[in-house]
Amino acid sequence: SGLVHIKNPHLDSMEEDILYHLDLGTKTHNLPAMFGDIKFVCVGGSPNRMRAFAQFMHKELGLAGDGEDLADICAGTDRYAMYRAGPVLSISHGMGIPSISIMLHELIKLLHHAKCRDVTIIRIGTSGGLGIEAGSVVITDMAVDSSFKPQFEQVVLDDVVVRSTELDKDLTEELLACSKEIPDFPTLIGHTMCTYDFYEGQGRLDGALCSFSSEKKLEYLKRAYDAGVRNIEMESTAFAALCGLCGLKGESSHTPVL
Amino acid sequence: SGLVHIKNPHLDSMEEDILYHLDLGTKTHNLPAMFGDIKFVCVGGSPNRMRAFAQFMHKELGLAGDGEDLADICAGTDRYAMYRAGPVLSISHGMGIPSISIMLHELIKLLHHAKCRDVTIIRIGTSGGLGIEAGSVVITDMAVDSSFKPQFEQVVLDDVVVRSTELDKDLTEELLACSKEIPDFPTLIGHTMCTYDFYEGQGRLDGALCSFSSEKKLEYLKRAYDAGVRNIEMESTAFAALCGLCGLKGESSHTPVL
Repeated sequence: SGLVHIKNPHLDSMEEDILYHLDLGTKTHNLPAMFGDIKFVCVGGSPNRMRAFAQFMHKELGLAGDGEDLADICAGTDRYAMYRAGPVLSISHGMGIPSISIMLHELIKLLHHAKCRDVTIIRIGTSGGLGIEAGSVVITDMAVDSSFKPQFEQVVLDDVVVRSTELDKDLTEELLACSKEIPDFPTLIGHTMCTYDFYEGQGRLDGALCSFSSEKKLEYLKRAYDAGVRNIEMESTAFAALCGLCGLKGESSHTPVL
Repeated sequence: SGLVHIKNPHLDSMEEDILYHLDLGTKTHNLPAMFGDIKFVCVGGSPNRMRAFAQFMHKELGLAGDGEDLADICAGTDRYAMYRAGPVLSISHGMGIPSISIMLHELIKLLHHAKCRDVTIIRIGTSGGLGIEAGSVVITDMAVDSSFKPQFEQVVLDDVVVRSTELDKDLTEELLACSKEIPDFPTLIGHTMCTYDFYEGQGRLDGALCSFSSEKKLEYLKRAYDAGVRNIEMESTAFAALCGLCGLKGESSHTPVL
């Protein structure tokens, strides 16, 4: 049907669904009217960057007006920012798995309530590159954890549930094909490693704490490279797991900044 | 000496330290002049709320001006927001352990570079209450994980290091004593449970995914209560572990909203 799957039997019996961190709700907003025609959702960490992306999309799509005054749909909260340009929704998710998870739970319910069909979701963000040219784009074929396993460990109450982090193969290829139409746009497909920590978790030597040597860091990053990892960020496993479970065609692509 | 401890031997040999996510650095900013007299740091999730808190402190401390136009010290980035009112620094950290960890690494280095002494750091935030009156304040004596253990598992490269999450006992008592001077201000000391997830991790029945029954949720929350947990949030274990290791007198206090 192309509809978004909600896997929560409790939701049907709820009179109202408040999407608390988005400052939206089923009783306060007409979600089908506001969002029913959304076909693409792009998510990234920084609110300013997601506004700039929406403005860019507004121009690319040739929509009326200059797109400079796009309103933040979540203006009532400072947890996330959300903008739309035609059928494209652009949303910030902050940094790290817990932050993107809260947003995705509420976004998925939003798309469900709005009866959206055939939605494609793409995470666009910065990342640390591994053995690749700075400024190139990594299209993720698989999100892996800090042990290079393609899985996401979700704590449900006090149980640990292991979820798959595979992304949509057709979409991966489609995005790669798009990149080839643009000259001087180095793009590759690779695994993306997702960590819970920016400093100690990604081998950085400049955090407040660092207990490993430069050699040990390089040895770890080399093992990651040999396992197929081409970049490192902090959201992709949760993104892949949640989107996969809810039937959203998902992809994650990143521009390494290091 | 009261100085902040940096536990990173690499830092001494660095010519410049860029606090990337705070948009500050040792070469671009005179950190001792800007922050050397800071004695208290208060951190919380929302940027707007941390600005409001700095404005409140500005008034409480009787500082010159109305405090309405406090500048965001991290205005060059939208990752975090930072304000100061006299010796009090007020900083946002976003949601979740990864997000607060990035901020704390850079904040701790900031306090170190600025040669601050005897700094007290307090996390002030909202949380979900457990068997207590809504609006009461929980002063955390111990941050526990989703298995009610007073520990924080930090992934360092691909090793897991277990860290203590004890907080400063004197500060806990001091804050409780302060609360008693204010009428109608229900305050208690208790354990704070820190989770990686807001929906499935905290027993919520209204996420996009929910695989447990209402009974199983209540059974889990009852076990948490019996283990001494009085509120649930998403940053306290990492906060306690990092502050403890770096010699910051730390405390975490929360107002349950549920």
